[in-house]
Amino acid sequence: MAAAATYTVSGMTCGHCVAAVTEEVSKLDSVAQVTINLVPDGDSSMTVTSATPLDEEIVRHAVDEAGYDLTGVPDTL
Amino acid sequence: MAAAATYTVSGMTCGHCVAAVTEEVSKLDSVAQVTINLVPDGDSSMTVTSATPLDEEIVRHAVDEAGYDLTGVPDTL
Repeated sequence: MAAAATYTVSGMTCGHCVAAVTEEVSKLDSVAQVTINLVPDGDSSMTVTSATPLDEEIVRHAVDEAGYDLTGVPDTL
Repeated sequence: MAAAATYTVSGMTCGHCVAAVTEEVSKLDSVAQVTINLVPDGDSSMTVTSATPLDEEIVRHAVDEAGYDLTGVPDTL
């Protein structure tokens, strides 16, 4: 069954940041869509839909690879 | 004779922005080096060294192509 979760990502300031995170997270197995709401002066949110639920640590690693940080606890829909 | 000028660039917020502007300005004829001092919350400065003096409008166009704005008057060294 499809899954969706919303994560908080800190450090993103512009569209290039959004593109970098989207690219890394989109590469993960089973990910169907990545939607980011950019908050340049604060914490942005990222909603990831996937064919199967994602391991938070795998998402965290992808965000870290892009150069940003996952903060807080994901909100699973 | 080599020339150098410092420009003010607005709208740059992160290293991706710096890379985008550096790439566009570096493509210009005679440009030898592009050095950007990023000020995420304000106006960044960009120093361009070139084999011959650059036309400000050509630099402005390159910065615009990258998605940012040249503001103020360049300081020619």
